[in-house]
Amino acid sequence: MKLATYKDGSRDGQLLVVSRDLSTAHHASAIATRLQQVLDDWNFLSPQLQDLYETLNNGRARHAFAFDPQQCMAPLPRAYQWADGSAYLNHVELVRKARGAELPESLRTDPLVYQGGSDEFLGPRDAIVCADEAWGLDFESEIAVITGDVAMGTTPDAAIDGIRLLMLANDVSLRHLIPTELAKGFGFVQSKPAPAFSPVAVTPDELGGAWHGGRVHLSLQSVWNGKQVGLCEAGPEMRFHFGQLIAHLCKTRNVRAGSIVGSGAVSNKDGARGYSCIAEKRAIETIEGGAPVTGFMEVGDTIRIEMKGKDGQSVFGAIEQAAVAPA
Amino acid sequence: MKLATYKDGSRDGQLLVVSRDLSTAHHASAIATRLQQVLDDWNFLSPQLQDLYETLNNGRARHAFAFDPQQCMAPLPRAYQWADGSAYLNHVELVRKARGAELPESLRTDPLVYQGGSDEFLGPRDAIVCADEAWGLDFESEIAVITGDVAMGTTPDAAIDGIRLLMLANDVSLRHLIPTELAKGFGFVQSKPAPAFSPVAVTPDELGGAWHGGRVHLSLQSVWNGKQVGLCEAGPEMRFHFGQLIAHLCKTRNVRAGSIVGSGAVSNKDGARGYSCIAEKRAIETIEGGAPVTGFMEVGDTIRIEMKGKDGQSVFGAIEQAAVAPA
Repeated sequence: MKLATYKDGSRDGQLLVVSRDLSTAHHASAIATRLQQVLDDWNFLSPQLQDLYETLNNGRARHAFAFDPQQCMAPLPRAYQWADGSAYLNHVELVRKARGAELPESLRTDPLVYQGGSDEFLGPRDAIVCADEAWGLDFESEIAVITGDVAMGTTPDAAIDGIRLLMLANDVSLRHLIPTELAKGFGFVQSKPAPAFSPVAVTPDELGGAWHGGRVHLSLQSVWNGKQVGLCEAGPEMRFHFGQLIAHLCKTRNVRAGSIVGSGAVSNKDGARGYSCIAEKRAIETIEGGAPVTGFMEVGDTIRIEMKGKDGQSVFGAIEQAAVAPA
Repeated sequence: MKLATYKDGSRDGQLLVVSRDLSTAHHASAIATRLQQVLDDWNFLSPQLQDLYETLNNGRARHAFAFDPQQCMAPLPRAYQWADGSAYLNHVELVRKARGAELPESLRTDPLVYQGGSDEFLGPRDAIVCADEAWGLDFESEIAVITGDVAMGTTPDAAIDGIRLLMLANDVSLRHLIPTELAKGFGFVQSKPAPAFSPVAVTPDELGGAWHGGRVHLSLQSVWNGKQVGLCEAGPEMRFHFGQLIAHLCKTRNVRAGSIVGSGAVSNKDGARGYSCIAEKRAIETIEGGAPVTGFMEVGDTIRIEMKGKDGQSVFGAIEQAAVAPA
C-alpha cells in the first residue's frame, strides 16, 4: 500500500491512503490519523489500511479525492530517529579520491552511518531555505526505509523483516560546512539541515521483484534545474543492504518503530549514469582536471527526484524542491 | 513545576505532575496524557499543569498519590531529537591529553555536539543492558534541557528562552567502540546506546537563582557502586551555555519542540571534585602514571546520579541504574 501525510496545520498532519497510480487518495482517519500511530501498532492497524487501499484501487472508496503531492508533508513529518548510511561505496571512493585519500579497507565491511536530526522534515514540495549560498547547498538523492521495532543484536537478514515502508529522500547537505564537522569526528550537525521525503511511503510488496536482498533494484532519477543529471541503478552497487544498515544501528541498542534509515547518495561506477549529488560530480572533475567546475545549488535552483517501477509508473511520486532565500 | 512519566505499557507512558519535594504526584490526564503533547502546545497546556502543581504542593489535590521513581520512564520516553554537547572543556582536554593530543583552539569557540539516537530512552531506574563488558561500559553524568520551537538563526541568548524543562542524564557510553567511530568522523552510533534521564523534568524557575546565564549553578553527584566518585560544580566551567549549544544546532535549521540537548559530562579542573565519567578518571591515571588503572563498569555495577538544590533537596530525583547481562 501507499501512504501519505497531508498538511493540516498540525505537526504530524493527516494520514492518507493513496492509490497505486497516485491519482486518488482517501483519509485514513477512521483507522489512524498519524503515520507514527500506525508504526506503533502495525500488526493491528496496517491490515485495515490495506483493506482501504484495495477499495481505493478498485475505485470503490466513497470519499476518494484527487491526490495532490503539493499538499504533502513528509510521510513521517518528524521521527524518533533518522540515521543515514553511505551504502554506495563508489560515492565514498570518489569523494575521498578527490581529496587524495584512499578508501580504508575497513569501510568495505563496516558501513558509514550518521545520526541526523529528525525533529523536522521537509515535505516533497517544500522549499529548501538557503540562508547562505557560501555554505555549498547540495542535494543527495537516496532511498530510505521506515522500520518497526528491531531488537538489539538482530542479524542483517532478520533486520530486513523489520522494514515497514520505503520512501525517497533528499538528504540536503551544506558541503562547505562538512570538512570542519568531519574533522571534529562528532558527525554532522550544521552541515545536514532538514532532509525531504517523497510524497508517499510504500510497503515493500509494492516494488514486487524489484525489492530483493534488502535492496531496491530500480533506477533513481535526479533532475537539476530541469536537466537530468543522474539515472542511477540503486540495486547492485549498494554495498550494504538495508538489513545491514539497520543491524549496524541495533548492535548495541534497540531500534524502535518509526526509525528512518537512509541509503546515502545512490552512485554507480559507470559515470554515464550520472550523479545523485553535486559533490560527486565535483569529485570527478577534481580527479580528472584538478579542480571542480560545477558549482553548488543557488537560490532559485530546483531539484527533482523520482523513481519509476518496471511498469514505468512513479512509485513514490516526485520530490520537487526549490532553493529559496530566507523570508 | 515538576513533571514525570509513569510506565503504563505504552510507548509514551502517562504524564504526571510531581510535588516540589518529590513526595506526591497527580495524573495530568485531565490536561494532557503525554509530555510531547505539552511541548507541542506549551503556552496553552503548561499553565494548566502549573495550576495542578500548585494545588498538589498545597496538599489540596484530591487524587494525589505517593510518587515512586521506580515506576518512571524517562520524562520524554522517546524524542524527536537528542543532541549532546561536550560543554565542559576540562573533560575534553583531559581525554585528549591522555592520548597525547592538544585541545585545538577552535574547540574553545566551536562546541562539540553529536546527534544521538532518540527512539528509545531508559527510565531513571531501568537497567543498562551490557551485551559485552569488552565494549567498556561507562556512565556520563550530565544536565539536559528540553526545548520548545527555536527558529533557524536564533542567537545564543535568545535560545535560552527556548528552554522549557531541565533534567539529569546518564549518557551511557561504550568507550572501546568510540575510537573507531571517531576515526570515521560520522559521529557516535554504536558507542552511544540509549541514555537514561532523571525521574522528573523541571521548569527553569524551580532552580531559582541557581539557573542563570543558561547554566545550572549546582553540584552534580555521581555515586558508583555506593561510593561517591564525583561532586562536580556544573556552573562556572560550562564553557558553552545551553543557549549556545541550541544556537549551534539551529544555525542551519529549525529546532523543534521536544528536542533534548545535553551538556556533556560535567567536569572541573579541581581534581578533588572527582569525576562524572570513568573515562576522565582513566585519562588522569594515564597522564599521571602512563596507563589507566580503573576499569570500566561490569555487570552488577550500579551508578547513581543526583543533584541537590541550595535547600539540600533533590531537584530531579536520582538516576539509579544497574548494569545487567542480556536476558
